[in-house]
Amino acid sequence: MKDIQLKSAAPADIERLSMETIAAEMPANDFTAEQLPVVMRCVHTSADFDYVKNLKFTENAVKRAVEAIKGGCTVVTDTQMAYSGVNKRVLERFGGKAVCFMSDPDVAAEAKKRGVTRAAVSMERAAAIEGSVILAVGNAPTALVRACELMDEGRFSPVLVIGAPVGFVNVVESKELLCSMGCDYIAAMGRKGGSNIAAAICNALIYSASGGARE
Amino acid sequence: MKDIQLKSAAPADIERLSMETIAAEMPANDFTAEQLPVVMRCVHTSADFDYVKNLKFTENAVKRAVEAIKGGCTVVTDTQMAYSGVNKRVLERFGGKAVCFMSDPDVAAEAKKRGVTRAAVSMERAAAIEGSVILAVGNAPTALVRACELMDEGRFSPVLVIGAPVGFVNVVESKELLCSMGCDYIAAMGRKGGSNIAAAICNALIYSASGGARE
Repeated sequence: MKDIQLKSAAPADIERLSMETIAAEMPANDFTAEQLPVVMRCVHTSADFDYVKNLKFTENAVKRAVEAIKGGCTVVTDTQMAYSGVNKRVLERFGGKAVCFMSDPDVAAEAKKRGVTRAAVSMERAAAIEGSVILAVGNAPTALVRACELMDEGRFSPVLVIGAPVGFVNVVESKELLCSMGCDYIAAMGRKGGSNIAAAICNALIYSASGGARE
Repeated sequence: MKDIQLKSAAPADIERLSMETIAAEMPANDFTAEQLPVVMRCVHTSADFDYVKNLKFTENAVKRAVEAIKGGCTVVTDTQMAYSGVNKRVLERFGGKAVCFMSDPDVAAEAKKRGVTRAAVSMERAAAIEGSVILAVGNAPTALVRACELMDEGRFSPVLVIGAPVGFVNVVESKELLCSMGCDYIAAMGRKGGSNIAAAICNALIYSASGGARE
């Protein structure tokens, strides 16, 4: 077997070394001290410094989201992948939880009956949640557009919308729509994003709320 | 609400349009007709054309993996996120299944007792599976290195190893180790990768086995 030189395998060391490397290679930017951990965690999860250019925050986005997490808010994701990636243990310590409606059989049944996407019905489920909601969209532009429609109709008032759908069709447009809504958002502009990015943004906010604690 | 022009929202149309855009923008490359769907799905899931440069295949990787899927193999992932992203419905139609041992309480207990990572213990669980295994690593270099050690010791013979850990510490080295093992692999070389990429590679192989069918 090839002899390779590995650095310490302790997870906490790996994370610290990774963040040091990211900080050292980070291009010049105007992010605030509150926003920077979000940007760094997106780079950490993708090894892609494009997120330093792509990420866009409203002024109070991080502050409001961190307060909402401390108050036990619900994080709604548009995919099971993003749901899996969110650190639910820390969220639950604050009395909050994460949910994803995409695989619910009744969501599929209602979507089929009404001839709409499951993502659209999932957003209506999100709008019906009582209490504070952070909405994290990492996949479906359809979900983001439906959420914007519900906000426009006054039926949905999330504390924060994380807009990180990925891809080549309707993705750029859906994020531009989000930025025009007047709500607080963190968005990965352009084509890039993904469930991993949506989860990374959630986790950066959760760790900011927990003072860095992961357990 | 801002008026935006969206293309057809039918999922099948979106996928087709996306793949057409990717094909039109794809840089020149030497991938075979078998490999290209894997490359395109990685770009599709990340909107990152770097994967056209990063992805490396052994000659028989795709063919052997597709045969294994048709024969009902087990897909092992190193994260719950990658597990969530794998199309288990199609895999199960062939008699196969996907598994991830990372969150198993007994894996955590054994890792703690032995002072090793959960990822390392998970790989030992993977090595103990009867029948054909495709191993998909999208996060932990530790998992990939432990899998290589088990292969070197003759205790683990996966049909294919998908090597797509992401990050800044031990990641590049772990993939170079994989490429030296003599096994069949599909690897995203360099720092980039992720659970989304590992799942995308699995799904591209699964759809090649199913003739494109998703259900």
